[in-house]
Amino acid sequence: MHSRITCLSVAFCAYTPTVINMPDSTYFKPATLAAPSLASLSAGARHDVARALEEDLGTGDLTASLISPTSVATAHIVAREAGVVCGRPWVDATFSALNSDIDVQWLVAEGETCHPDQVVVRLLGPARGLLSGERVALNFLQLLSGVASKTQTYCQAVVGSHVAIVDTRKTLPGLRMAQKYAVAVSGGVNHRIGLFDAILIKENHIAAAGGVREALAQAQLVAQADTTDTLKFVQIEVETLDQLALALQAGANMVLLDNMDLATLRQAVDMNGGRAVLEVSGGVTVERLAELAATGVNRISIGGLTKDVRAMDYSMRFQVT
Amino acid sequence: MHSRITCLSVAFCAYTPTVINMPDSTYFKPATLAAPSLASLSAGARHDVARALEEDLGTGDLTASLISPTSVATAHIVAREAGVVCGRPWVDATFSALNSDIDVQWLVAEGETCHPDQVVVRLLGPARGLLSGERVALNFLQLLSGVASKTQTYCQAVVGSHVAIVDTRKTLPGLRMAQKYAVAVSGGVNHRIGLFDAILIKENHIAAAGGVREALAQAQLVAQADTTDTLKFVQIEVETLDQLALALQAGANMVLLDNMDLATLRQAVDMNGGRAVLEVSGGVTVERLAELAATGVNRISIGGLTKDVRAMDYSMRFQVT
Repeated sequence: MHSRITCLSVAFCAYTPTVINMPDSTYFKPATLAAPSLASLSAGARHDVARALEEDLGTGDLTASLISPTSVATAHIVAREAGVVCGRPWVDATFSALNSDIDVQWLVAEGETCHPDQVVVRLLGPARGLLSGERVALNFLQLLSGVASKTQTYCQAVVGSHVAIVDTRKTLPGLRMAQKYAVAVSGGVNHRIGLFDAILIKENHIAAAGGVREALAQAQLVAQADTTDTLKFVQIEVETLDQLALALQAGANMVLLDNMDLATLRQAVDMNGGRAVLEVSGGVTVERLAELAATGVNRISIGGLTKDVRAMDYSMRFQVT
Repeated sequence: MHSRITCLSVAFCAYTPTVINMPDSTYFKPATLAAPSLASLSAGARHDVARALEEDLGTGDLTASLISPTSVATAHIVAREAGVVCGRPWVDATFSALNSDIDVQWLVAEGETCHPDQVVVRLLGPARGLLSGERVALNFLQLLSGVASKTQTYCQAVVGSHVAIVDTRKTLPGLRMAQKYAVAVSGGVNHRIGLFDAILIKENHIAAAGGVREALAQAQLVAQADTTDTLKFVQIEVETLDQLALALQAGANMVLLDNMDLATLRQAVDMNGGRAVLEVSGGVTVERLAELAATGVNRISIGGLTKDVRAMDYSMRFQVT
């Protein structure tokens, strides 16, 4: 019996979903998640875009009224730096929402790396729609390309190891699916999407349940009773090797090791003996990745993938006719 | 006749709205904007929070079911680094949406600076609601405090000059009002909120209208015809001193100087002679602020205030009883 943590995969993405084989356990509900369909991803993007257009356009684009409604333009979105191109569903949805006559041609595939001054998208259509959509489209593209580029940097820092780079719930509010998509596009692995699709037992839950064994037993009952068919895993967070020993004795098959130093991590890996999937979290920087990976843990989760953002630099250039 | 660009002010914010006196002009519609009321800010925050809770909670918090529904807890949100505290309406709205019995006490005022390990918020109420709301509340608080802290750094770099630090529309999609609020909390000035509340004439609009004079004349007609009562200003972007001369001759009272070097900026200020409000944009870093301010321009707008984000570090600590 094997279960998988599948990242958000979409038909047109140039990446291979990362799969982790998880040990069997009575604490794990073995539903294999279906990756979101292209249709559901597009629907999510349309939802995000509608909100962004609403806040930008409000009662209407006053400046666009300086342009004739019959003007047609070509435009190019140009990368001004190297990075991973990401955000196509959101860019497409932006122009599609503004004017269905706008033609959007992608010259760089989603998830591919571009170089400075490379034309990434070519657009053709009514000038007003192109001008009104420019900023919203670029805001999605620069954000998601920034997340994907950072994820790529982190993934490259552990090339050669078998460790997975994993995101967290420390995301920009309202942009979780978009950011988790960007992480997956660059080969990162999505942790739980939210509170609904996995159980992560932390200190307070352990205290409330009366101990590690009791908390895991309760979680098993919750998992068995769950009827949503979206539960991916049960994970327990431990802060000490004693807690890890208790969790392993209780049959935990996925453990989060919180803020342990390297020596303790190596001991945790030895103690585990391949039984549970071990994840490191807390204070992880790109500089520390190689030494963390070398301890033999399976996953490293990093809040900074999604909570700290540096937008990738793009501009849009027009030729109005 | 004087008009004002008023930042988003709210009753409980510990900051003074920044006001710029603008020269008179036929191109400027002199409506003084009312600052958003506390009620409208709270409504916006509730809207943002509903979306963030939806994406995090989905079908429900599976792990919270390990905690008794009758458990009560106290919790503290602690700053783990120094910075500007910002995000109170969103944190309040998060816990209020989850359980109206949760009491949220702020120990640091909105917009005030905190020190590492300082307790910023004390919470008391049903443990499940506190645990389910923790991440969403912290995601808003860490993001908005990050924006406010960065804005403070930029504002402090121009202390002693009269230059205003101004935001842009390069924001995180769906979070524009929240981010512009955070900029204003730290003494930054909000540029237009979106395409609906000001006219910014750029290269393509000038080309389509047939020149600087024609574009400004058309914009005046649009401004006069606008019935929304939200139009704040008409601004024109120029790339050369020749274009600036044309704009000033045509009566422009607000000009965006795009990517000019320091010598050209000084010439622009001389040529302007105090007639129009001059704004610098393009490639502005905190290191360049002092020299840009010294040219005598009135405003410096910075995309990086809102498009690049470093979350401020907070944690939430619980005592479940």
